[in-house]
Amino acid sequence: MSGACLTLAHGSGGLAMERLIRDLFLKTFADPELARLEDAARLESGTGRIALTTDAFVVDPPFFPGGDIGRLAVCGTVNDLAVAGAVPECLSTAFILEEGLALAELRRIVESIKRAADEAGVRIVTGDTKVVPRRAADGVFITTSGVGRIPAGIALGAERLRPGDRILVSGPVGDHGAAVLDARGELGLSHGIVSDCRPLTDLVRSLLAAVPVHALRDPTRGGLAAVVNEWSRACGFGIAVEETAVPVREAVRGLCELLGFDPLYLACEGRLVAAVPAEAAATALEVLRGHADGREAALVGEVVEPPAQVVLHTAFGGQRLLDQPEGDLLPRIC
Amino acid sequence: MSGACLTLAHGSGGLAMERLIRDLFLKTFADPELARLEDAARLESGTGRIALTTDAFVVDPPFFPGGDIGRLAVCGTVNDLAVAGAVPECLSTAFILEEGLALAELRRIVESIKRAADEAGVRIVTGDTKVVPRRAADGVFITTSGVGRIPAGIALGAERLRPGDRILVSGPVGDHGAAVLDARGELGLSHGIVSDCRPLTDLVRSLLAAVPVHALRDPTRGGLAAVVNEWSRACGFGIAVEETAVPVREAVRGLCELLGFDPLYLACEGRLVAAVPAEAAATALEVLRGHADGREAALVGEVVEPPAQVVLHTAFGGQRLLDQPEGDLLPRIC
Repeated sequence: MSGACLTLAHGSGGLAMERLIRDLFLKTFADPELARLEDAARLESGTGRIALTTDAFVVDPPFFPGGDIGRLAVCGTVNDLAVAGAVPECLSTAFILEEGLALAELRRIVESIKRAADEAGVRIVTGDTKVVPRRAADGVFITTSGVGRIPAGIALGAERLRPGDRILVSGPVGDHGAAVLDARGELGLSHGIVSDCRPLTDLVRSLLAAVPVHALRDPTRGGLAAVVNEWSRACGFGIAVEETAVPVREAVRGLCELLGFDPLYLACEGRLVAAVPAEAAATALEVLRGHADGREAALVGEVVEPPAQVVLHTAFGGQRLLDQPEGDLLPRIC
Repeated sequence: MSGACLTLAHGSGGLAMERLIRDLFLKTFADPELARLEDAARLESGTGRIALTTDAFVVDPPFFPGGDIGRLAVCGTVNDLAVAGAVPECLSTAFILEEGLALAELRRIVESIKRAADEAGVRIVTGDTKVVPRRAADGVFITTSGVGRIPAGIALGAERLRPGDRILVSGPVGDHGAAVLDARGELGLSHGIVSDCRPLTDLVRSLLAAVPVHALRDPTRGGLAAVVNEWSRACGFGIAVEETAVPVREAVRGLCELLGFDPLYLACEGRLVAAVPAEAAATALEVLRGHADGREAALVGEVVEPPAQVVLHTAFGGQRLLDQPEGDLLPRIC
């Protein structure tokens, strides 16, 4: 494919960089605060607490079924704010780009960022662009930071978990991790798996409005297994997970069997895990399933008495510890 | 040198990553909000506007006289907030690390981040760590984002510049850019140049308390030349710069002559450029010079009538246009 490529001059602070910023970033993101081109964006404060989060995205490949590094960079950061109980308001985007990157590819990613930001209802108000020589980076790395506002009365956290609380997931687990592995094409044939990558803003808002949620998380690196393990250690109680209750798509299960992975450890990028009091579980499930982003939600487990460990009740009637992931060698999944 | 090195497992979301985060980041940064290990930090809001900024740091080499990538990542972001008139409050740090990086080197950088954050009076409240395979990145990349509070009554911006305004710099220009070039060791011998890398928080606070500043910037990529060019285009007025008035260290001038660079285009990381009304210039200069971080401040130019261009009055009594930098091929200077 022909087409212009990124040069070191695009990151030098000179005219080439200014043209890139004006013609690509400012035009696409179209935000008046960003357009001021000052190094810091100024935002109205209002009242209440704010939340701040950051994530670096290095996913390989940068384009995969269901998303790309741009969409992922928005969703990952927006979702971290949403599960903290915050209403995402604005994002910053910092690019580390490799010399020689096709400008058309960068444009596709930037346009994807804009679409995802619009879906999530956030503004992109400031950013930075660095270009490094060939082989000093691999294509595109994006770090997004986000600021949100925490409405009064919101109190979420693993320390609020109590025995009896029910654990819900908003849909099948492992889609994102499996989609990226699949897209790497090292498996010979495609399994047609699509990433779940999406902003959870609206789903979280609906859930928080309906039931008294104790804790919320998005199961990214380390998957559902990492979330319940962290919760268990943080609250000191055990968590029991019903293996057959955890929704896993057939294609994801097939890929996992082929590669020896456990879908409970695979990253999601558009699911939430919620812990709610037992008496609120039915309503929570109904609210999740009534929302376009939670139609396949399921009740998958329960907080139980100490010790602080996660017990998986398996399909065959047995039980085993679901360990904290140790280092599963799935680099660049997000 | 022997010693442990970073592995892909340190970025996988598993136990190895958790140990790295607890033993290195949490212990060193020692912040209760960071220690919650939630994906988003929660901050008290207070009243007034907030400022948000982000910067990616890819400097090569990561250690140089006067600083390192960690110190730079704090100062760069803190200074962007400070020159926006904001009081820096908290930072996020996102690391993209290359497999095989010496853990001792990472520790040195993280400790340097903590020292710089303490100097600047900011907390590190959230972060992210990604590890990519060898040759997918070069050592350490850090993206810091920062949130600050803008006190009531602060109004800074290039649009406030008026003919007659005086332009001041807080010290010699080009030290950082020259120090990094020098540290690359490609010049055969060291010129002993030390980066000016420092937080400007307190210097800016002193200046804003003393005089009605119209605009403030830190001259990083593109140096002083980039700042005055951006200001001129933004306000529509001309800017006249007196070449002999711009402080440049002898060693920096020597390196520039050797390499064919102009110090006015070299990056600073601990200087500010201020535009103040003519009647406030003497006080502003006095305030800057009375502060440890501005002892060598100088009055270097003036806003003049249109056209919007920067005219340099040279040492030899002539004058020429000081252009916007075009793309000066100094990659990885910050």
